[in-house]
Amino acid sequence: MSSSFKFQCQACCSHTQARAGVFSTPHGLVETPRFMPVGTLANVKTVTAAQLQATGAQMVLANTYHLHLQPGEGIVAGAGGLHRFMGWDGPMLTDSGGFQVFSLSKMRKITEEGVTFRSPRDGRLIELTPERSIQIQNTLGADVIMAFDECPPYPCEREVMEASVARTYRWLERCIGAHQRADQALFGIVQGGVYLDLRQQAAASLAQLDLPGYAIGGVSVGEPPELIEKIVKATTPLLPPEKPRYLMGIGTYREMAQAIAAGVDLFDCVIPTRFGRHGAALVQGERWNLRNAQFREDFTPLDASCGCYTCQNFSRAYLCHLVRAKEILGYTLLSIHNLTELVSFTQRIREAILCDRFTTEFAQWLAPAAASV
Amino acid sequence: MSSSFKFQCQACCSHTQARAGVFSTPHGLVETPRFMPVGTLANVKTVTAAQLQATGAQMVLANTYHLHLQPGEGIVAGAGGLHRFMGWDGPMLTDSGGFQVFSLSKMRKITEEGVTFRSPRDGRLIELTPERSIQIQNTLGADVIMAFDECPPYPCEREVMEASVARTYRWLERCIGAHQRADQALFGIVQGGVYLDLRQQAAASLAQLDLPGYAIGGVSVGEPPELIEKIVKATTPLLPPEKPRYLMGIGTYREMAQAIAAGVDLFDCVIPTRFGRHGAALVQGERWNLRNAQFREDFTPLDASCGCYTCQNFSRAYLCHLVRAKEILGYTLLSIHNLTELVSFTQRIREAILCDRFTTEFAQWLAPAAASV
Repeated sequence: MSSSFKFQCQACCSHTQARAGVFSTPHGLVETPRFMPVGTLANVKTVTAAQLQATGAQMVLANTYHLHLQPGEGIVAGAGGLHRFMGWDGPMLTDSGGFQVFSLSKMRKITEEGVTFRSPRDGRLIELTPERSIQIQNTLGADVIMAFDECPPYPCEREVMEASVARTYRWLERCIGAHQRADQALFGIVQGGVYLDLRQQAAASLAQLDLPGYAIGGVSVGEPPELIEKIVKATTPLLPPEKPRYLMGIGTYREMAQAIAAGVDLFDCVIPTRFGRHGAALVQGERWNLRNAQFREDFTPLDASCGCYTCQNFSRAYLCHLVRAKEILGYTLLSIHNLTELVSFTQRIREAILCDRFTTEFAQWLAPAAASV
Repeated sequence: MSSSFKFQCQACCSHTQARAGVFSTPHGLVETPRFMPVGTLANVKTVTAAQLQATGAQMVLANTYHLHLQPGEGIVAGAGGLHRFMGWDGPMLTDSGGFQVFSLSKMRKITEEGVTFRSPRDGRLIELTPERSIQIQNTLGADVIMAFDECPPYPCEREVMEASVARTYRWLERCIGAHQRADQALFGIVQGGVYLDLRQQAAASLAQLDLPGYAIGGVSVGEPPELIEKIVKATTPLLPPEKPRYLMGIGTYREMAQAIAAGVDLFDCVIPTRFGRHGAALVQGERWNLRNAQFREDFTPLDASCGCYTCQNFSRAYLCHLVRAKEILGYTLLSIHNLTELVSFTQRIREAILCDRFTTEFAQWLAPAAASV
């Protein structure tokens, strides 16, 4: 790992494996635990980089698969890399494209070499291999890049999953061999589906490689949500404590709180902006549909305790009006709030860990499932 | 006119009727000449109030017709009025609904009393009269409200237009009678179509009424664009010089420059945001389609001389990417630039008038038509 990257643990919870830390990257610090907004196509949908910064987000994702198809990594590099292209000067992460190839592409063919699929944009045949994914991510230039992995959907036979985990490990070795830039940290991804022993074996093998960070992938792919906590709890003890841990694709209150209790530091999810574009707000753990008539004459803010631009300046009645009128501004204002809400949820957990009050202050989210977003 | 409203001329052009002034309203000053963005449904499409303020806009419009239908003026009043509802603390203007009733509604019936039409939203029968329009505008609470007028489309027979101008005058008298709030200034609207003598008669009659401001309406309703300048030039000399003059619905470079030369102070148009939502940018008098392949690898800003958020932070290549990917952020960034561009065009004219260099610095826009946006 380049000296540009460092993970420092600042405090550990005395009742759980939760920890508060600081992850240093060439583009600045990420205070953990922290939710990371997703900027699929080099933008977090409907919000500007300035609005994004105001949400408290510190690290932002972009998707290699999407950017390779459109506009192509060459154009991003021509602009001076992803940070310059999208006007985000803070830490960034790109995924490897693995998840999207497996979840979005039709007509894909998987071999030991890699994956071949047809571009959903123009039908052209595209081959993505571990080497190619790393090359694209090196060209895009995010601070953290992810190993190219196989991500089987749920359910998946044990034998199939075993073979897949083994292949993901071989692909990881090829990713490490292909990786060229010392100013980018390559994270490995633990797969294994719902088979806890496979997860543990994968985590133990990856830990040997002394990577700058570790992710838990292949969750939220269709399995019952209550399994997520079990998977995370089985995996984290085998990952090196001095490295950041990232649970991929998760951004719901309960799952984040429980994963933090198991020692996870980073999260991402498209929920805040997707809900926003559907006229929904995340308010203190609940999902509200702003179209509802109950909000038409409600002149209070979405959440009086929230410091976001939306809550500081507009009423539920205004948001209800915008959403009903299908005004794009409604989606923007809701996305700003939703992003702030999830970043702030993890930030408040961080502050609770720092004064060792995590389990008392967040007890409602650490208890087994009730209604959750 | 309440003492809250005052129009002060700061400088007059020595070659034209152009003037630079300051229009005081209860919510602040409007430095003229100035372009006013349109916030039809209590928002300027795709931009937040904060982004709008950064464009240099000082006065913003909203549409009485649209707001009456959705969410209804009662809800706006419940929020504390239009300013509070939409988070815009600066000067605001509402139109009367006249233009929209005539241009958007089907199945309308016009009588001396007013206009009856079916709501395009829910089919319900709505009657809009001069009294009702003023009552709605009093309820919405903008600083400037507009008289309810009849706005015949082009072409229109002279006899029909004569009768319509006479009716618009009678409706104006009823508007004056109905108007209740001293903190709102009621502007009269000069109609008359392309009949310059009718325009002049209307302007002369309205001038007698000593209103706090005057608008020229019924332009850009289908007549040849070169007639706009003729209509404006025929009308302005008959309007009181100590009152602000507003040319409704016009926001193209040449037409604004020529109208300013004829003594007009205020303009509005939906072009900046409509172009933005279509992926087009206004750049120094031209319309660019950002989808064009020529912008794919153009890493320069839209307009290096523009101080807007978009030009200061993003490249044409990024905007091209967002527009091609149909990302909403692209429309927002283009709208921010386009709004800034037109506000700044009128602001630069204002500065030129203040040092009496309007006709030299803006000669290209004062000459008869060439290609114009």
